[in-house]
Amino acid sequence: MEYKKEILKFSGMRQCIVLTGSGLLAFSENPAGRWGDGTRCAIVTNPVVSGHYLERAREFLHQAGLECFEVIVPDGEQYKNPGTLELLYRAFVDRRLNRSDVIAALGGGVIGDLAGYAAATFKRGLRFVQIPTTLVAQTDAAIGGKNGVNLDAGKNLLGTVYQPEFIFIDIQTLLTLPEREFLSGMAEVIKYALIADSDLFGLLEEKRAAILERGQEELLEVVTRCIAVKKKVVEADEREVLGVREVLNFGHTFGHIAETLTGYTALLHGEAVAIGMKEEAAVARRLGAINDDQYETVRKMIVSYGLPDKLPGGFHPEAVQDILSQDKKIRTNRIRLPVLTGIGTAEIRELKCAQLL
Amino acid sequence: MEYKKEILKFSGMRQCIVLTGSGLLAFSENPAGRWGDGTRCAIVTNPVVSGHYLERAREFLHQAGLECFEVIVPDGEQYKNPGTLELLYRAFVDRRLNRSDVIAALGGGVIGDLAGYAAATFKRGLRFVQIPTTLVAQTDAAIGGKNGVNLDAGKNLLGTVYQPEFIFIDIQTLLTLPEREFLSGMAEVIKYALIADSDLFGLLEEKRAAILERGQEELLEVVTRCIAVKKKVVEADEREVLGVREVLNFGHTFGHIAETLTGYTALLHGEAVAIGMKEEAAVARRLGAINDDQYETVRKMIVSYGLPDKLPGGFHPEAVQDILSQDKKIRTNRIRLPVLTGIGTAEIRELKCAQLL
Repeated sequence: MEYKKEILKFSGMRQCIVLTGSGLLAFSENPAGRWGDGTRCAIVTNPVVSGHYLERAREFLHQAGLECFEVIVPDGEQYKNPGTLELLYRAFVDRRLNRSDVIAALGGGVIGDLAGYAAATFKRGLRFVQIPTTLVAQTDAAIGGKNGVNLDAGKNLLGTVYQPEFIFIDIQTLLTLPEREFLSGMAEVIKYALIADSDLFGLLEEKRAAILERGQEELLEVVTRCIAVKKKVVEADEREVLGVREVLNFGHTFGHIAETLTGYTALLHGEAVAIGMKEEAAVARRLGAINDDQYETVRKMIVSYGLPDKLPGGFHPEAVQDILSQDKKIRTNRIRLPVLTGIGTAEIRELKCAQLL
Repeated sequence: MEYKKEILKFSGMRQCIVLTGSGLLAFSENPAGRWGDGTRCAIVTNPVVSGHYLERAREFLHQAGLECFEVIVPDGEQYKNPGTLELLYRAFVDRRLNRSDVIAALGGGVIGDLAGYAAATFKRGLRFVQIPTTLVAQTDAAIGGKNGVNLDAGKNLLGTVYQPEFIFIDIQTLLTLPEREFLSGMAEVIKYALIADSDLFGLLEEKRAAILERGQEELLEVVTRCIAVKKKVVEADEREVLGVREVLNFGHTFGHIAETLTGYTALLHGEAVAIGMKEEAAVARRLGAINDDQYETVRKMIVSYGLPDKLPGGFHPEAVQDILSQDKKIRTNRIRLPVLTGIGTAEIRELKCAQLL
């Protein structure tokens, strides 16, 4: 019953406790103790995750004192929309949830985004817990409080920053993840290594075989290292107003463009980020921030984890320009881009959008 | 060009500057200085307010450096719904608003609620400014960051807490307010006096004639006193988690019930609050917190400002019980009710719902 604990601290004495372990949901004792006392809890999940982990999560939360019921939403990014939100709100109304009740997101990034947004906006905020079951969610999406809902006009056009009280990460859930989704998650892991943790980069090189076989010991090390990087950044700049948090967007500017150009169906998020990291490493090389060898090291790492490094069809400048003009990160036609300055370091530079083309 | 300035301070170094004056929007110099520099600003308003004040507000914001366009939404509480939100989001998308751009709410509580919720949830938060033009909004709704959107299942079921950067209050706008709406606003003023400011209560007794004639000098004093009370409460408990802010709910528990029972059409919000204050003063008398004379003083003040003190048809216990079970303020079937302990003082007491009946 080994687990690691991390506490994220935010202004106003708010905090978020992250517990990570292999088999955490099945531990005979809930390591968070009895934090819910007869309060109700809506477990938001989808049919796929529900089949694997709903009973385990329900038992885990029950140990903490919560009376759970599930709200099943359809599986897939295409359902991360106001229609599904309406379904959630209706379930909350039907069960007469109040502000002392809890919403638990059990699943990947889509579930976390939907449940987090609904928790943040229903009755000015219900209590919120994340139980991420994908590698992307465990290392990135579930941590830091960002949520998002797509509109027809674009991805994540709605969203808030709303911290969960707890994040429960059971890395055993990664064992049932389809190979392509697991590798997609590795893209975010590589991102953390590149922007902030050269030791993690070394680990990814040395232990590649064990990681690809989803060795629990190696994954526990990998996931907790990613959380440690994200903790620092989100604590320093929770609401992304100081620019500190922007470094996490490495690979995401071109990744977002890749997703938009391919209509969000051909590529998984991490695959788009992998392509984006290679493109943005190329920008860093053009700016002289990294050299040819470093660029090649980045590219090789990406492909060594079975990830794509090229957008089929390439990036058309006019299309890029048009997408950039709707990007949340753009202010007055200049873009603040995380630029690699080495393997394990990055900094924000303000560039003209044209410098990306 | 006399005006009063108040600064609300929140955790994380956030602050909200409140400027209040008679004729503020037409001052030849914008007292907030040049705080927006070429950023765009969506002025959210309705056809009625727009006819009176849109040009004045546009000029006022232009002086601050903002490039404004208006988004007109239909007038009325019945439009404080997801459909109108969609209209706002679409306008923001069409104009390609980014996080550095500004949303300004020009109007009463409905406009402030809609614009505030949209500003809080679009792209994880745009800059936000309030220009309240009704007495309810100037003394209450615009201050403190709460917003709300109705669902079919109930009022304000959606909402967040999202602070504006500035609140610009021009009490001259009260001169065009229909009499019934003005008096409705006086209910909130009476509430502040009752829970926290016996001097204000005295002022309301002494200067009733001048206030009812909307004398600018008297209204400036009244409005700024209300803001001072609200400032203290919301600074101490921004997100309503410590219970401090709950004292502002005086009159609102029964007020909410009155609104629900009458379908939100027969009564203005302040009229419902007036009825609620009388009912809750009766609860305080039953609990022995105030005596018969004090109860009568409260009731007389309410009717002396032309406000109702009775719900036509009365409150039916079963209906009350049913509505309470959906109330945001209720946790595990007990209610934390602000109870008057004198003229100008109140405290929160935890009661069983049955004690209200």
